[in-house]
Amino acid sequence: LAALDRPVVLVSHRGPVTFAVEDGERTTKRGSGGLVSALMGLAGHLSDAIWVYAASSEEDRQVMTEAKGKAMRLALAPQARLVEDDASVTEHEHTIYAYLVDVPERQHEDFYSVISNPLLWFVQHGLYGLAQDPVLTERTREAFEDGYVPVNDQFSDVVVEQVRAVAGDRGRAIVMIHDYHFYLLAERVRAACPEALITQFIHIPWPSPNDWRILPPYMRERLLRGLLGNDVVAFHTLRDARNFLLCAADILDLSIDLGALTITVGERKVGARHYPISVNTEALRELAGSADVRRHAETLRRDFLTGGRQMVLRVDRTDPSKNIVRGFRAFDVLLSDHPELAGQVVFFALLQPSRQDVPEYADYISALGGVVAEVNARHGRDGWQPVQLRLESDLALAVAAYTVCDVLLVNAVRDGMNLVAKEAVLVSERDMVLVLSETTGAFDELSRYAVRAHPFDIQQQADAMYEALTMDVDRRRAWLREAAAIVRHNDVERWLDMQLRDLLRLDEDR
Amino acid sequence: LAALDRPVVLVSHRGPVTFAVEDGERTTKRGSGGLVSALMGLAGHLSDAIWVYAASSEEDRQVMTEAKGKAMRLALAPQARLVEDDASVTEHEHTIYAYLVDVPERQHEDFYSVISNPLLWFVQHGLYGLAQDPVLTERTREAFEDGYVPVNDQFSDVVVEQVRAVAGDRGRAIVMIHDYHFYLLAERVRAACPEALITQFIHIPWPSPNDWRILPPYMRERLLRGLLGNDVVAFHTLRDARNFLLCAADILDLSIDLGALTITVGERKVGARHYPISVNTEALRELAGSADVRRHAETLRRDFLTGGRQMVLRVDRTDPSKNIVRGFRAFDVLLSDHPELAGQVVFFALLQPSRQDVPEYADYISALGGVVAEVNARHGRDGWQPVQLRLESDLALAVAAYTVCDVLLVNAVRDGMNLVAKEAVLVSERDMVLVLSETTGAFDELSRYAVRAHPFDIQQQADAMYEALTMDVDRRRAWLREAAAIVRHNDVERWLDMQLRDLLRLDEDR
Repeated sequence: LAALDRPVVLVSHRGPVTFAVEDGERTTKRGSGGLVSALMGLAGHLSDAIWVYAASSEEDRQVMTEAKGKAMRLALAPQARLVEDDASVTEHEHTIYAYLVDVPERQHEDFYSVISNPLLWFVQHGLYGLAQDPVLTERTREAFEDGYVPVNDQFSDVVVEQVRAVAGDRGRAIVMIHDYHFYLLAERVRAACPEALITQFIHIPWPSPNDWRILPPYMRERLLRGLLGNDVVAFHTLRDARNFLLCAADILDLSIDLGALTITVGERKVGARHYPISVNTEALRELAGSADVRRHAETLRRDFLTGGRQMVLRVDRTDPSKNIVRGFRAFDVLLSDHPELAGQVVFFALLQPSRQDVPEYADYISALGGVVAEVNARHGRDGWQPVQLRLESDLALAVAAYTVCDVLLVNAVRDGMNLVAKEAVLVSERDMVLVLSETTGAFDELSRYAVRAHPFDIQQQADAMYEALTMDVDRRRAWLREAAAIVRHNDVERWLDMQLRDLLRLDEDR
Repeated sequence: LAALDRPVVLVSHRGPVTFAVEDGERTTKRGSGGLVSALMGLAGHLSDAIWVYAASSEEDRQVMTEAKGKAMRLALAPQARLVEDDASVTEHEHTIYAYLVDVPERQHEDFYSVISNPLLWFVQHGLYGLAQDPVLTERTREAFEDGYVPVNDQFSDVVVEQVRAVAGDRGRAIVMIHDYHFYLLAERVRAACPEALITQFIHIPWPSPNDWRILPPYMRERLLRGLLGNDVVAFHTLRDARNFLLCAADILDLSIDLGALTITVGERKVGARHYPISVNTEALRELAGSADVRRHAETLRRDFLTGGRQMVLRVDRTDPSKNIVRGFRAFDVLLSDHPELAGQVVFFALLQPSRQDVPEYADYISALGGVVAEVNARHGRDGWQPVQLRLESDLALAVAAYTVCDVLLVNAVRDGMNLVAKEAVLVSERDMVLVLSETTGAFDELSRYAVRAHPFDIQQQADAMYEALTMDVDRRRAWLREAAAIVRHNDVERWLDMQLRDLLRLDEDR
């Protein structure tokens, strides 16, 4: 890892640990989700970094009250715990410092459920059918001005305070901001800490200027200016980085260099970069070997895979960007085109309900449930139901399904990276074939060892699944081996290392 | 006009004249719609050009049968007529030659109502909400392969034949192709007529690579390659031209020059250009002075404008890209924010039903009717209905409404140009204020003399209408004068001249 001579401050909306109280005892829960687990892997390489994130429980707030305005120390692995006595830390424990920001509930609601999701998420994934949606109102402006803006202000105040605490008044620290919740942060941190090196990683796609213009001027310009407070704005793919440059040129009329990937902002140059994120391979391997996963895998094999039967799998949040409805429709086409598959192939869909307080997400669950019923009614027979839908979050079950499935369907409309694809190729035990949407970030790395899916063409997706289900075993095995090697090579440590090296090089150039 | 030493062949889907039979007599009907009238203005400057377009009536087919496979001669102005005897042509008549292509009905249906509209139209206007639409199937591929492709083949065969007839075997003619119906034409014409200068004008927006990728590979690559058979691909705005280049780079991996606006295709360079189209100012002025228009204007004044009352107007096809529903919602907000406007301002919406055989268009009429009922129920009183909805096509009524309205609302989601805005500023007699969407091509030319509308923000549109309704008369008058001067300066002759000069210069360079 690049040798750092400065402290690191990490910022993200969700963090690695949440506190709760059970039976009068304080308990800790590890964060879930692809981004948080990747960042936890990253934090494992950054001992004593400070991680700033939003408190999300009453007990989170209680712990922060007890910490009296200071960052607290957390051990993340092997067990998550609050370190109350430094002497108790063992050599096997990774520790970091954490500062949990207590955002007023009403502001958080506007920040999270009105602006970040759905508005920014939908714009950046191209999900709006512009004839009908979005309809922006005075409420939208209020949610931005009274929610997104003050939450960003509050976070930036905390970050500035933490940077000064560890790096002095000029703020000679590295600040790593994550994702679309904090587009206004960098500009304010830079103003207060002129020597800070600031970088922001955006984990979702960056849209074209046409799509960024869906946002009204008061929002789209301010968000871009906020982001240009960074030294480097990082994405998963070159396409996203280029789109970001094109937006700076189109919306703010700034001068850009599409070859060098830089934007000139006054005296400064802001870089756009792309570093494809990976998964926490070690944690995943451990989990795949656990008794829990083994037991689930056994059950899945017994229920669905005896007698030469096969399984198509998808594992996703119930997010419209994941393209779940078209996936079921494509499976419907597959069964109609190939009647011999009836009773032989099951589509196992493990879907985690997500953002159910956002109407678009609630509607989407109802839409996908409707299509599953249609497909099962059309093709079910003799006790066999072609689609097995599970609406729950169960990481052990998901990993078990990775190990036993024949085909993993990832047909996302757009996806910054898609970590499900990367996780599954690492743990498959059945020569799984990946069917991968060409509009995911992962496609850039894995396209040679996956069957391409076009997200809007359900006939093509049906054909792709058929190709995957009938592929000969030598090819399956070779593809899986190559894909896994790529994911293993480009691990989280390398992902972090590349970012830090570029940042330090940039600092030397100044 | 640039001096031409070669014959011109024009190609568009719809043409300037349709034949019919009434009471046993052959009649002619002039084509309507902004594009056809602009092209008629253009044809007025190109005497003896050959215009190739689709037959659209039984009598069109009959006329072509009688012409025995040759182009027929048409006079376009002052009266449209078939010239059966060259000696009958008077010096005041503009004539052209016309070749009407008889496309088999089933192919035309696929070409027009499945591929061109809605698919290409929706992709290029950003109208798909990608979570749900489009759903491309085997039927889509068939409609492309068995409809769009053969119709383009059929047209290209006709064009090649006509080029050879007037310009010999090497085809030293100028071929001007129009719009999104014919993306596959230029490549085939070039192959057959190596000396032809070929240009294609695309009158609708060109999307970003992200959006062009909504089309499946078999379509998006082939359409781009077809277009690259042109010497120049022309658009209304620089943004469209740039997006076209970015698509060539992203989808076909071709080398582009964003400064020079060129694409390298093997040994050739294809140029992208932008020439904002205008309106046929002379024809419009004549129409505005006609008795029919005068009478309509009188009625509108009497019904809606006595006692200091005001009128907001919109004139559009019922196309989802026109953003009609949000316009009504914005008017709703306006009336709620300013109760003093009740009874004082009417929203006159003259909407021409369009493409009702395409389900998305039929649904849209029903949606907009619903919103009008809501708004009228909420704000109507004492016999006053705030929204006056007219679903009909009446050019004289539209021009009459232009002359008397106080505010013209053009809030399109996206629009290649928007000729309604340009027409209205030419004929207003009441110091009309233009409220103009920032995502129309016309905004590039007229933004300084219009109130900007953001297409998705209904509060902002309500505020923009209020600003326009209450603007002081000196400013209204000055803006209107400037806007009209811009439209008059950049007339159809200049539009054509710029294109021809660039083409001839390009030919000299070869």
